Amino acid sequence: MNTEARFDPREFRATLGTFTTGVTIITARGADGLPVGVTANSFNSVSLDPPMVLWSLARNARSLEAFQQSGHFAVHILSAGQEDLSNRFAKSGADKFTGVACSEGAGGAPLLDDCSARLQCRTSFVYEGGDHLIFVGEVVAFDRSGLPPLVFQAGRYAVATRKAASLSSGSLDAGWSEDHLPYLLGRAYFQVYFRIREHVRADGLSDDEYFILSTLAVRDGRTQAEIEAGLSHAGCDCGFQVLAGLRQRGLLRCEDGTGDLRWFLSDEGRRRTLHLIAAAKAIESEVLAGLGEWDAVALKNLLKQLVLSTDPGLPDLWSPPPAATTGAEA
Amino acid sequence: MNTEARFDPREFRATLGTFTTGVTIITARGADGLPVGVTANSFNSVSLDPPMVLWSLARNARSLEAFQQSGHFAVHILSAGQEDLSNRFAKSGADKFTGVACSEGAGGAPLLDDCSARLQCRTSFVYEGGDHLIFVGEVVAFDRSGLPPLVFQAGRYAVATRKAASLSSGSLDAGWSEDHLPYLLGRAYFQVYFRIREHVRADGLSDDEYFILSTLAVRDGRTQAEIEAGLSHAGCDCGFQVLAGLRQRGLLRCEDGTGDLRWFLSDEGRRRTLHLIAAAKAIESEVLAGLGEWDAVALKNLLKQLVLSTDPGLPDLWSPPPAATTGAEA
Repeated sequence: MNTEARFDPREFRATLGTFTTGVTIITARGADGLPVGVTANSFNSVSLDPPMVLWSLARNARSLEAFQQSGHFAVHILSAGQEDLSNRFAKSGADKFTGVACSEGAGGAPLLDDCSARLQCRTSFVYEGGDHLIFVGEVVAFDRSGLPPLVFQAGRYAVATRKAASLSSGSLDAGWSEDHLPYLLGRAYFQVYFRIREHVRADGLSDDEYFILSTLAVRDGRTQAEIEAGLSHAGCDCGFQVLAGLRQRGLLRCEDGTGDLRWFLSDEGRRRTLHLIAAAKAIESEVLAGLGEWDAVALKNLLKQLVLSTDPGLPDLWSPPPAATTGAEA
Repeated sequence: MNTEARFDPREFRATLGTFTTGVTIITARGADGLPVGVTANSFNSVSLDPPMVLWSLARNARSLEAFQQSGHFAVHILSAGQEDLSNRFAKSGADKFTGVACSEGAGGAPLLDDCSARLQCRTSFVYEGGDHLIFVGEVVAFDRSGLPPLVFQAGRYAVATRKAASLSSGSLDAGWSEDHLPYLLGRAYFQVYFRIREHVRADGLSDDEYFILSTLAVRDGRTQAEIEAGLSHAGCDCGFQVLAGLRQRGLLRCEDGTGDLRWFLSDEGRRRTLHLIAAAKAIESEVLAGLGEWDAVALKNLLKQLVLSTDPGLPDLWSPPPAATTGAEA
């Protein structure tokens, strides 16, 4: 417990940071006609009738006078994709609006696009608040886009996801439970892949063959060892027999370069692979729609975190081939 | 765009809801010595020097007078597990504190446990704010626990997760990208299961055999059809040959009930399965530590959402057996 006697400002900021917020950019037009804008997470709602919101601005902010004189301000609740815009307006500088598309709102306040929501306000009160001033405004117009909002927590950008119900009320003494991450990952993966597998099987392919073809669709001309390096952790058999089997069915061709054989998709192989990928993307769209757009953003985000933090050192599937290899292929 | 001319209160609330917040419970001790407490998401920080925070309370709140008279209040930033406590303090009622462990803070304000953070405040200002009053307090003591915070967004409880870096800077025209959900799910799953598989193989088992044994560890006495119903979507071979093979190695035994054969773990089978599950849980712990506790909560939460929304109608692994079946087993 920190008390007045030993008040650590850094620890105080960290403690405040546990309160999650959205991120807003507040804009106004100063008495000189110039637009001002600041990133703020001190926004909150105050009143429903009359509709009022508030936010706080540091007394030493360059734009303080403009906000005090304007009599209006516009609050932009930023969407998950607007991290760069947030960073731009968080810094001091005269060129914040350069290249940013704006329309004009109440009191001349610049209105930015692609936010989750916007609230145009007439300043009602400006209150003392220590080293900040508290601006309270009455909302005169507002709109929202449906885009998932950007979130700020513990000093970092974040996205939020609604809390899920429990999968099952039962909790048996089985040594593991539905909360076991490998189980959740596996069940989620197999429930989604289950539907893709139907298409893969209908095309006469095994799961392993589909994984190999998808990998080569990203970039072909890989050796068997390169294909295995990316897929063996998945328990995928990428042995010569499997590759030769795909070649025999006219889906792959191989070239004898300097060293190992390099494997390429045939035209027919590429056509059928892209067809399967299109089917997988249609299934993905349905799955994401079932999850909802906001949670879809959050889930992909977390899976990327997990992939990065558990990467056993897999080759980067998406990287261009090493220069030497390119030469050999040319 | 909603303007003054057509101001829809419901749409206004939805627009405010796009601003994500934490959830707090604010407590105080009234002049009558009785504790009061309300759930509020209108909290925010105001000033660092002096350290000040604010929150808003409806003018018609029962506890308004107590908060006005007290001169102190305590802000509890709730943790992800405190949804029930949040609901309890969001309702009107005299019994909010019944059965809730409290200590006493500055000005006698009740202090609740297991929050993400707590801030004890001396009321500095009470300002007008439409149908609410804005309480501004100077923080006289604070602490935080490290527990991940509860989040509120779009009218629902949520959890937040930090935004991930991109997996790869490359983006090739392959028909699919690293953003493809089935790819992310599969890569995440296989990177985690990859490490469990080492233990499974060291124990002389195939992946399918491990899945079957884990399922029976939850509840055995299942028929082959029941085992298949839960695992076939994962492409798992649960055929009689596989079950018989496990029996031959002394890991399963079967009983001839009324109808199909029912499969049970042998003592040796249970011992070895629980041993593997313990290894899987140790790996899970490492993976979750790499992800961080807050993101781990969010990821599990989202995977549960996904499992629920893509469930092809799998039997509930955790449910007790139907009554009739229990009878047959007895």
